[in-house]
Amino acid sequence: MERLSPLLDRVRPADREWEDRAWERLKSQIRPRGSLGQVEVLGARLAGIHGSLTFDLSKKLVFTMAGDHGVAAEGVSAYPQEVTAQMVYSFVQGWASINVLARHSGSDIRVVDCGVAADLPAEWPIVHRKIGKGTANMVLGPAMTREEAVRGVLVGADLVEDACVREGYRLFGTGDMGIANTTPSTAVAAVFSGRPVRNLTGRGTGIDDAAFERKVEVIEKALRVNRPDPSDPLDVLARVGGYEIAALAGAVLGAAALRVPIVCDGFIATAGALIACRMAPHARDYLFVSHRSQEVGHDTMVELLGLRPILDLGLRLGEGTGSVLAMNIVEAAAKVLMECKTFEEAGVTDTGH
Amino acid sequence: MERLSPLLDRVRPADREWEDRAWERLKSQIRPRGSLGQVEVLGARLAGIHGSLTFDLSKKLVFTMAGDHGVAAEGVSAYPQEVTAQMVYSFVQGWASINVLARHSGSDIRVVDCGVAADLPAEWPIVHRKIGKGTANMVLGPAMTREEAVRGVLVGADLVEDACVREGYRLFGTGDMGIANTTPSTAVAAVFSGRPVRNLTGRGTGIDDAAFERKVEVIEKALRVNRPDPSDPLDVLARVGGYEIAALAGAVLGAAALRVPIVCDGFIATAGALIACRMAPHARDYLFVSHRSQEVGHDTMVELLGLRPILDLGLRLGEGTGSVLAMNIVEAAAKVLMECKTFEEAGVTDTGH
Repeated sequence: MERLSPLLDRVRPADREWEDRAWERLKSQIRPRGSLGQVEVLGARLAGIHGSLTFDLSKKLVFTMAGDHGVAAEGVSAYPQEVTAQMVYSFVQGWASINVLARHSGSDIRVVDCGVAADLPAEWPIVHRKIGKGTANMVLGPAMTREEAVRGVLVGADLVEDACVREGYRLFGTGDMGIANTTPSTAVAAVFSGRPVRNLTGRGTGIDDAAFERKVEVIEKALRVNRPDPSDPLDVLARVGGYEIAALAGAVLGAAALRVPIVCDGFIATAGALIACRMAPHARDYLFVSHRSQEVGHDTMVELLGLRPILDLGLRLGEGTGSVLAMNIVEAAAKVLMECKTFEEAGVTDTGH
Repeated sequence: MERLSPLLDRVRPADREWEDRAWERLKSQIRPRGSLGQVEVLGARLAGIHGSLTFDLSKKLVFTMAGDHGVAAEGVSAYPQEVTAQMVYSFVQGWASINVLARHSGSDIRVVDCGVAADLPAEWPIVHRKIGKGTANMVLGPAMTREEAVRGVLVGADLVEDACVREGYRLFGTGDMGIANTTPSTAVAAVFSGRPVRNLTGRGTGIDDAAFERKVEVIEKALRVNRPDPSDPLDVLARVGGYEIAALAGAVLGAAALRVPIVCDGFIATAGALIACRMAPHARDYLFVSHRSQEVGHDTMVELLGLRPILDLGLRLGEGTGSVLAMNIVEAAAKVLMECKTFEEAGVTDTGH
């Protein structure tokens, strides 16, 4: 805990004054006021984050946090647990959707083993930070200890800080890989929203009616058994979260502490972001929700965060695929703010509209 | 007319068989079936357009079609007509929102004078295809002659064909510039939908209540005076359209005739696309609607087209800004289809979900 409190203390609000200055510039640019909608909103937020109207987001990195879940034993996923490690191998080879989309967006990708339930070869070019070989089954007790939850958070925060300070990355994205991880993420949404599990549960990677009912029961049982305390986000993370969810939360805290923007992916990454924002509410100022996930509970998470997703493309994959697509829009917003001329500069008649 | 009919005849349906083959490949790639949502839908449509699973969309071009409107004299816009030419100058200088966003997206931009109400210097590096110095005021009679409408359509179609065949562009976007052009676009939406003008009228670049009422009256009067025939799209275009709207329609027809994809921008560009699809219904197969415009009548146009907009960012600018942002997603969809490995290729356990 001795490293967590200082991290949280470093998360301060974005600079409202610079956000206002950005709006002044945006409103003086040669187009009708507000006509670039959310692109302008993003640009102004970025100015508040940087405390400046000049910044370069071109060096981008997405973290794909991987972990396994003991609750997979309850049959909540359509895929066997071994797929987590297989997909990590695919990421390493550059074969998966996230590889294709990260290349397209000009974002680098870093895969992190936070807790895959297999011994991944040390020579794989991933970041080896395994906290455990999969969490414990949360229907029987806490998914992990409180100490493990803290370690997971610090994994994410440290990785973002290193990448920013040592390597110069300036725009981050988060993504996940972990068979069964919509189940803990739904539990997190239920705890923080107080809404019925049934209304927040989706079909994950594609389960049938019977499996859906089982998934609802499993999550309800996990909440009964663990009684996570919604006022203690670390307790929620430890009892019904996951190793990769801890790192996803930590990445958001690390970015916020450093005052750099971070874009979260869909249902699982947003669960992590939600935990981060409950631990340090101002982290929200540095966070962008990449897209509206097809997972039903995602709307509730986004509502709790009070943020508007950038894209709505019916995605429900994870890996960071939504993050890298949305990074493109975030970067575009920065360029509009910085590069578009004003009415005065361009000599265009300004009627003030 | 002797060149229009052959153009329309060349617009044939996309290849459903190749679209099916694309779905087969998409469903065999290492992710849960359909989990990339609209990105997969776009990829499959692109395969149908190209009749192939292999194509390169990296050479991109957006056409910003500019024109003025006699109906501006009725006070329907918050900006004076001279702003059209001023903005064309800004495009030439690289100062405007479209320049910033096209650079960001790696798209070239070509500005076309279809009918600006000023003599634009011949040395400006734009495409000079002026049909008239602004349309006639449509509350007094047709905006243009039927012959002018045809010429405008051919301007757009020829430019796309030249750019594709001679210069090798493979993905097109459309955009507009023209003070008062939400007014004719609303009229077009009203004619084709049969819905009340009031329900389709927006605030354009930012007009007040009194100006809004005037705008509704002006459009209603233009429809009463002209009685455009909804079954004759060229009649609609000539009576209540615009020179740039004609070229925007033509660009879609040109792309469809060549079997290359084209992304339309917001309210005005979609009005052009709608006219194109009424002239040659299969043109729809080659068309992508970049975004859901903030203009209220846009939803109706999109519904008539039966297409789902790619982005929803509250844009209402035009210029092609939505097109170049969405081109990025279209290109990403192509790469997912082509580059992501299958379960078999990657050795990932496939449970068929």
